[in-house]
Amino acid sequence: MLKAVQELRELLHEGAVSVDDDDITQHSFSEWSTSNTTVQPVAIVRPISTEQVSAIANVCSKFKVPMIPYGAGSSIEGNFSSPHSGVCIDLSGMDKVVAFHPEDMDVVVQPGVNWMNLNNDIKTSGLFLPLDPSPTALIGGMVSTNCSGTNAMRYGTMKDYVVNLTVVLADGSVIKTRRRPRKTSAGYNLNGLFTGSEGTLGIITEITVKLAILPSSYSVATISFESIRQAASAAFSMIRSGVPLAALELMDEVQMQIVNKNGGAGGRMWSELPTLFVKYSMPLHATVFAGTNAAVQDSIRSARAIAQQSNCQSFESASSTEQMDALWSARRQSLWASLAARPPGTQIWSTDVAVPVSRMAELIGEYPGTDDTQHERRTGLMALLRGAEICRERASRLGLFNSIVGHVGDGNFHQVIMYNPDVPEQKTAVTECVNAMVDDAISMDGTVSGEHGIGIGKKHSLAKELDGATLGVMKALKDALDPHWLMNPGKVFDE
Amino acid sequence: MLKAVQELRELLHEGAVSVDDDDITQHSFSEWSTSNTTVQPVAIVRPISTEQVSAIANVCSKFKVPMIPYGAGSSIEGNFSSPHSGVCIDLSGMDKVVAFHPEDMDVVVQPGVNWMNLNNDIKTSGLFLPLDPSPTALIGGMVSTNCSGTNAMRYGTMKDYVVNLTVVLADGSVIKTRRRPRKTSAGYNLNGLFTGSEGTLGIITEITVKLAILPSSYSVATISFESIRQAASAAFSMIRSGVPLAALELMDEVQMQIVNKNGGAGGRMWSELPTLFVKYSMPLHATVFAGTNAAVQDSIRSARAIAQQSNCQSFESASSTEQMDALWSARRQSLWASLAARPPGTQIWSTDVAVPVSRMAELIGEYPGTDDTQHERRTGLMALLRGAEICRERASRLGLFNSIVGHVGDGNFHQVIMYNPDVPEQKTAVTECVNAMVDDAISMDGTVSGEHGIGIGKKHSLAKELDGATLGVMKALKDALDPHWLMNPGKVFDE
Repeated sequence: MLKAVQELRELLHEGAVSVDDDDITQHSFSEWSTSNTTVQPVAIVRPISTEQVSAIANVCSKFKVPMIPYGAGSSIEGNFSSPHSGVCIDLSGMDKVVAFHPEDMDVVVQPGVNWMNLNNDIKTSGLFLPLDPSPTALIGGMVSTNCSGTNAMRYGTMKDYVVNLTVVLADGSVIKTRRRPRKTSAGYNLNGLFTGSEGTLGIITEITVKLAILPSSYSVATISFESIRQAASAAFSMIRSGVPLAALELMDEVQMQIVNKNGGAGGRMWSELPTLFVKYSMPLHATVFAGTNAAVQDSIRSARAIAQQSNCQSFESASSTEQMDALWSARRQSLWASLAARPPGTQIWSTDVAVPVSRMAELIGEYPGTDDTQHERRTGLMALLRGAEICRERASRLGLFNSIVGHVGDGNFHQVIMYNPDVPEQKTAVTECVNAMVDDAISMDGTVSGEHGIGIGKKHSLAKELDGATLGVMKALKDALDPHWLMNPGKVFDE
Repeated sequence: MLKAVQELRELLHEGAVSVDDDDITQHSFSEWSTSNTTVQPVAIVRPISTEQVSAIANVCSKFKVPMIPYGAGSSIEGNFSSPHSGVCIDLSGMDKVVAFHPEDMDVVVQPGVNWMNLNNDIKTSGLFLPLDPSPTALIGGMVSTNCSGTNAMRYGTMKDYVVNLTVVLADGSVIKTRRRPRKTSAGYNLNGLFTGSEGTLGIITEITVKLAILPSSYSVATISFESIRQAASAAFSMIRSGVPLAALELMDEVQMQIVNKNGGAGGRMWSELPTLFVKYSMPLHATVFAGTNAAVQDSIRSARAIAQQSNCQSFESASSTEQMDALWSARRQSLWASLAARPPGTQIWSTDVAVPVSRMAELIGEYPGTDDTQHERRTGLMALLRGAEICRERASRLGLFNSIVGHVGDGNFHQVIMYNPDVPEQKTAVTECVNAMVDDAISMDGTVSGEHGIGIGKKHSLAKELDGATLGVMKALKDALDPHWLMNPGKVFDE
């Protein structure tokens, strides 16, 4: 490995290769990762071009050195850890917008471009990249984990926005998956294969992403309920009514407490009850004819009627842009808020699953408090959130402070559990709790990761989700493109 | 091969294996295929279950016999031809809806289910599969070619609707790509890989597809223009205005003549001018509060204003459901209408490309009649349709009767050329014309197939679209899953 580092030093520009201890540690640890490793990379390399990444892969391939791509370091399943050591390739310096094609509604970027900066830069074009992951996320990492976020319900996930990728393969060869059509049926869908492959098949060095038309304005309603169950019932009714929702999010009472603990949001405090955040977006044309935002008014009226039928405690439409922005930023920053709010000495275990909603209803009889089974069978989403509630109750029984944030429109929910890693019972309890959630998701025909990927933290879960033949196909694809398993080894699955 | 057929006869039920000449010919030829082969399969096999397909693959694998999956036979690039002979596996008998989960908004089907039958069967649930290919298409084939159609602009393409696939691999092993989550980041995206792979990686025997909420009603406007150029300008303005379009289709004056020749549509004749078909869909909730379809009224008003700015010749909103249905059925049946209208002795060459719209503007100076260059550079879609017009002019110069149908919202257009295969000059001319269209699409950063796949007809085109390294990756994936190249050989690319 040191020979490889030496050769990289000779090959690259001054300062491109770092063996500084602090630098290495910063690239090896994250306080919101579930799976930090003690093994670290031997060096951090900072390429500035596809050609340099290709040269790096060439050298690493020659010396059989693992390559670990690194972006913002905000992934949470140990996706950027270096369990087999190797060279960490930090792509955050490749942060240029290569070409913006407003008339094609796409933009070509390097992997180190931050999505919020991009959206800010192109705002005046009326276009945006409608993904909504961590504010720190870089587009390369977003592609690698097939991220999504609160907007997925309406806009889909990262894989739906990839027009083409430039990828450096293990041997240093460079491919471009396609040209720039928005739609194609020509040959295998390599965009789909590399998206979500977590750097295990190649290193993404350039991305063309589709953009969507920026809604001219949003409208937000917050609806609080006595129980998660009632919130679920209302959410299900809203989805099936066809109300054109942009997002449908749930924060449980614990998350609402955390918002208040951090000083509230939108200049006020909020009810500490399970709360649905409903976002409607108003299409641009609605502003062309002044005063005709009837569609949004319709939506709000419809949502209000449904919420009232579900016995909501309160229904509020956010009254100003500032308040809406603050609300959504509170939602987006919930992980940070949780970090700020945690008791001293504790860490956070943040993870997610996604399920098709009806299967849980079939299982729900196994759990206490399910007198309303018939109704639950009818409303799958309700069952999903009942599942989330069960996860939370389980964590509480184990003495853990934890909260639930759900992308209920996608059948995807997150659990954030605080625990003290130095207390063995708590470490055991959190592991047990997460494993139980994962097992539940699988038994409900779901998936062990809705939007964070597998990394190290969920390898054993993926092996439960998929059968051996299916995993075998994935490994055959890995073997075909990276025969020595040098690309981000130890992630997704093992040899 | 005959040994394999014998073994299949012993293995399968009575009537499952046919060597009848007529049967074989029917599975080897289509009058709208661009690439019929003289070589035919030795037998047609009709499995009724995944287990039988697996058994067939096992036998074929043992005797190294090519396997050619067959659905409706409506693909047009020779995707179901048997250039290396082998066994044709007709999946049209596997036509069961396995499980319908309205509460999860998905349905599990066998590959032989026809999409229109499915949508009819589940209509009362308020859900539908929003793809819109040939009316005869079966869902297995739709997945295999990553089909789309007129609704793709709003709803996306087939790959966006695949929740999971059951696939029989070359050696007879069976995999299920995933369970039933609507969203996942767990492991490689095998759905994306198999979708669009045209049966060259495996045979799809079961599919779970996502469903969308059926709009409560549609509204359609037809807008005619003096020239394709003006139609393009209007289309571009509509897209960028954010009008919530469900579809945006163009039929040129030749296609409109064909509609009239077939007796019109909606009980009337239509202007024989380039015509935009604009479809708006009204969300379900709009009918909850009677009389509040303000959103659709807004859209129509906005579209009318844009059309008038683009000097349209006429703007009509369809006045009844019957008329709208007839109009869209006319659009959908345009290939059949063309077949009906063709002169005796002629065949049809139907093909498509898709491009990002601005690149063509850069090239447009090379063509005559482009005095309005500045404006065209600004409006990429206009350039796209200008490109379609050039293709049409080129075909006309070569003495061919041809027409253009465009999914303008996707940068995707189809050319239907009629020619007499027995007149060598016409055969040469049509080949030249299609190759020129493909070359143009590539030089504009586009793709050689927007929705029909590669089959045999576009193998040489795909090799132009992608560079050697990219094709090399696709072939490595093929090698990994089908080392003896037994699955639909001779399609997409050669060894």
